[in-house]
Amino acid sequence: MTRSGRRPKVDDSSTRDQIRVAARQQFAERGYQATTIRSVAEQAAVDPSLVMHFFRSKDQLFEACVEWPFDPEVELAAVIDAGLPQAGEQLVRLFLATWDARGGHNPVVTLLRTAMSQESVGRLLREFIQVRLLTPLVEAFELDQPELRAGLVASQLLGLGIVRYGLRFDGLAELPHDAVVASIAPTIQRYLSGEL
Amino acid sequence: MTRSGRRPKVDDSSTRDQIRVAARQQFAERGYQATTIRSVAEQAAVDPSLVMHFFRSKDQLFEACVEWPFDPEVELAAVIDAGLPQAGEQLVRLFLATWDARGGHNPVVTLLRTAMSQESVGRLLREFIQVRLLTPLVEAFELDQPELRAGLVASQLLGLGIVRYGLRFDGLAELPHDAVVASIAPTIQRYLSGEL
Repeated sequence: MTRSGRRPKVDDSSTRDQIRVAARQQFAERGYQATTIRSVAEQAAVDPSLVMHFFRSKDQLFEACVEWPFDPEVELAAVIDAGLPQAGEQLVRLFLATWDARGGHNPVVTLLRTAMSQESVGRLLREFIQVRLLTPLVEAFELDQPELRAGLVASQLLGLGIVRYGLRFDGLAELPHDAVVASIAPTIQRYLSGEL
Repeated sequence: MTRSGRRPKVDDSSTRDQIRVAARQQFAERGYQATTIRSVAEQAAVDPSLVMHFFRSKDQLFEACVEWPFDPEVELAAVIDAGLPQAGEQLVRLFLATWDARGGHNPVVTLLRTAMSQESVGRLLREFIQVRLLTPLVEAFELDQPELRAGLVASQLLGLGIVRYGLRFDGLAELPHDAVVASIAPTIQRYLSGEL
């Protein structure tokens, strides 16, 4: 099936936006599970095949709504492959690499800023971090207390983002990756696999 | 000296606001050290004695600018009195008690939200947390690497605030204080007194 054969006879970018607006609202209000390609299509008043045409899957539609800076499928697979005893360090390195790659513009800080001021974006971000980032991880490692562990990991990683990139605290803003990892990775590791 | 004997012949509340606007700007732009009662008075076009009349000290002026929900002098003294081995737990309990006392309205989340979207408020908040909350603590306990330790403590406490009260993650939003303390206090303790 070629792209031209499938191209719908509509204004692509405005239809795409229309779908994304509907999806963003549903992921925020109903959560990930209850949102479907069909329910989004219905609200956007388009055919479900058009949603698939633009976004290919529910997961990719979700990522497009959040504008998360890396592909969780690819990056989390690498963290999981490295094994549980390395997961703390791998997660911290993944977050640092993603953030620092953007230089001054930090997409997670931007997202967090919006999430803190708009409740619906806050729900969207929470849902995304829980469903797409942390649940796959705690499930792959078959951890007990998955929700608590996920919340704790999120608290330290988001807090690191705020203090290093948002508020730029003296002690952390310019610290080299290895030193950040030495300090923060043991925390993440305990939240994942330690006694709580 | 009675209050009525000192009452200046001006509109109290608008003068107070005028001083606070000037102070907020200076604390954010110059930092705590370089801001003085005199420099604030000059910018607000009032006599320095009037600044003292309204705010009593530079520290209290600073707190009025940030609207921090507890008096650091009182609360940190209690944490310090309890001794370094208890400091992690004491700090987590202090933050939880402060936050939960306000019910739905969480002043630190409000502050953080503004700090993330307005750079000057961000600088003000960072300066306040560093100078008034964490520096007294690391100095009282004579800790090495004070800036790094302060930044790490801030990252976990602010991250906890965001995930528990701002984004309301499932695993943490409703968790009883004792369970939060059991999970988070060892992290804060390591950031204060452990190997980094």
